[in-house]
Amino acid sequence: MSDEPQPPAARPVFYVSDGTGITAETIGHSLLTQFSGFRFVTDRIPFVDTPDKARQAVEEIVRAGASHGVRPVVVNSCVDPELNRILAESGALMLDVFAPFIAPLEEELGAPRQSRVGQAHGMVDFEVYHRRINAMNFALTHDDGMAINYDEADVILVAVSRAGKTPTCVYLALHYGIRAANYPLTEEDLESDRLPPRLRAHRRKLYGLTIDAPRLHQIRQERRPNSRYAELETCRREVSAAETLLRMERVPMLSTTHASIEEIASRILEELGINRGMF
Amino acid sequence: MSDEPQPPAARPVFYVSDGTGITAETIGHSLLTQFSGFRFVTDRIPFVDTPDKARQAVEEIVRAGASHGVRPVVVNSCVDPELNRILAESGALMLDVFAPFIAPLEEELGAPRQSRVGQAHGMVDFEVYHRRINAMNFALTHDDGMAINYDEADVILVAVSRAGKTPTCVYLALHYGIRAANYPLTEEDLESDRLPPRLRAHRRKLYGLTIDAPRLHQIRQERRPNSRYAELETCRREVSAAETLLRMERVPMLSTTHASIEEIASRILEELGINRGMF
Repeated sequence: MSDEPQPPAARPVFYVSDGTGITAETIGHSLLTQFSGFRFVTDRIPFVDTPDKARQAVEEIVRAGASHGVRPVVVNSCVDPELNRILAESGALMLDVFAPFIAPLEEELGAPRQSRVGQAHGMVDFEVYHRRINAMNFALTHDDGMAINYDEADVILVAVSRAGKTPTCVYLALHYGIRAANYPLTEEDLESDRLPPRLRAHRRKLYGLTIDAPRLHQIRQERRPNSRYAELETCRREVSAAETLLRMERVPMLSTTHASIEEIASRILEELGINRGMF
Repeated sequence: MSDEPQPPAARPVFYVSDGTGITAETIGHSLLTQFSGFRFVTDRIPFVDTPDKARQAVEEIVRAGASHGVRPVVVNSCVDPELNRILAESGALMLDVFAPFIAPLEEELGAPRQSRVGQAHGMVDFEVYHRRINAMNFALTHDDGMAINYDEADVILVAVSRAGKTPTCVYLALHYGIRAANYPLTEEDLESDRLPPRLRAHRRKLYGLTIDAPRLHQIRQERRPNSRYAELETCRREVSAAETLLRMERVPMLSTTHASIEEIASRILEELGINRGMF
């Protein structure tokens, strides 16, 4: 027998929802990051929209509690009180993501909520769907400076290759319906101390991304190992030239080295003063 | 003077956060959909991580309340009590998205939370970032069946052109780090009653998307107006053949006609039994 102290049991956490469970998972994940000393095993149980499915969920939750030897946590966004009554039978710690806010909102607005299930991320109207898909097609066809219809762009991201332009463009399109194009600075561009002519007419839409050279080197190595393109020295030179150029031309700029895609997207919207509801 | 009843004033809603504000906006949006009779004007105030920024936020909130003539609502995910004290001075209805859940979690886990700001969607480690970016590159290079490395795919979406494959693949990559490829069923494929040979080896990864023919017609019309490709009759024939084929081959299938991208993604994960944490 070992005298080593046992690590604490991993705690099962379930994101339960009558819809996709995205709201429950988003807030649940944020809550768990505030208890960083613990181990959690997370799982989602979406589309719980009938008493039968709620009972199946309860079984799964109870089973997880028994196998981990610890009380599960349920982050729950079901709206129907009947479903919530059934889920409570699991004996888990129930965190109902809407309950605490409904009463104050009802009081403030002077009206009761309408309890339709799975609304937030569910069915959408055609126009909204279309705006989103069009923005995404725009991002995909305006990737890497190939197409040139910058007139229609809401944002043009400018950076050296592999600094994070593409994922940011796709994220902006997918979540905000923003037409985000990107322009990769070429070696030729970097020899100049002016913006490429094609970009000058769109100055207000420009946003620069930069990145630490060692990190860029690491990313490019994965893509084209041991190429001149990936060399640390190449990365250093390109990043330094790009930063100088963007600074001279007063293009707002953000380092992606330690930022998540969400953070980059959020800062771009903030800085360019774009207010769009999130999908 | 008009005797018409005035529509109620639009209510300003602010998503305030010490980070990106994604958590606040996600839950706030879900809450607002439950009060569908009201008009809301939403705005986000992210990266409120100093008392100065909190005071600027307060000014903005107070101004919006005055100009709309109605008390604003603030959905707030700031963690620092000092910032929250300042924000409360706005006089808005404050909905603190974490507050109701922290005490029960602390009690359950037997430890206080660590209050670091902006953690949930903030800095990420390199490996996680890389998995996400690689998945996205995979989705983009395996779009529309051009590349053929299905061995590495976690999921292969099978459908006729414009049924929703690409946005779903990108979403799966971006939010779950899933390598999602897609295979567009061609006219030739649809003449057969068997799956295309390239797909047969990957049966367990296949997921079919379908769509109502009139909706598909509408989407294709936008893309190639008045083409044979967009004709309602073409859409009817393709959809019907695709559904027959997928049903015969027992490939799970979902209609995208009334589903959001989130919902499609969520159902695919559920049905294929893939459990991945969300980015």
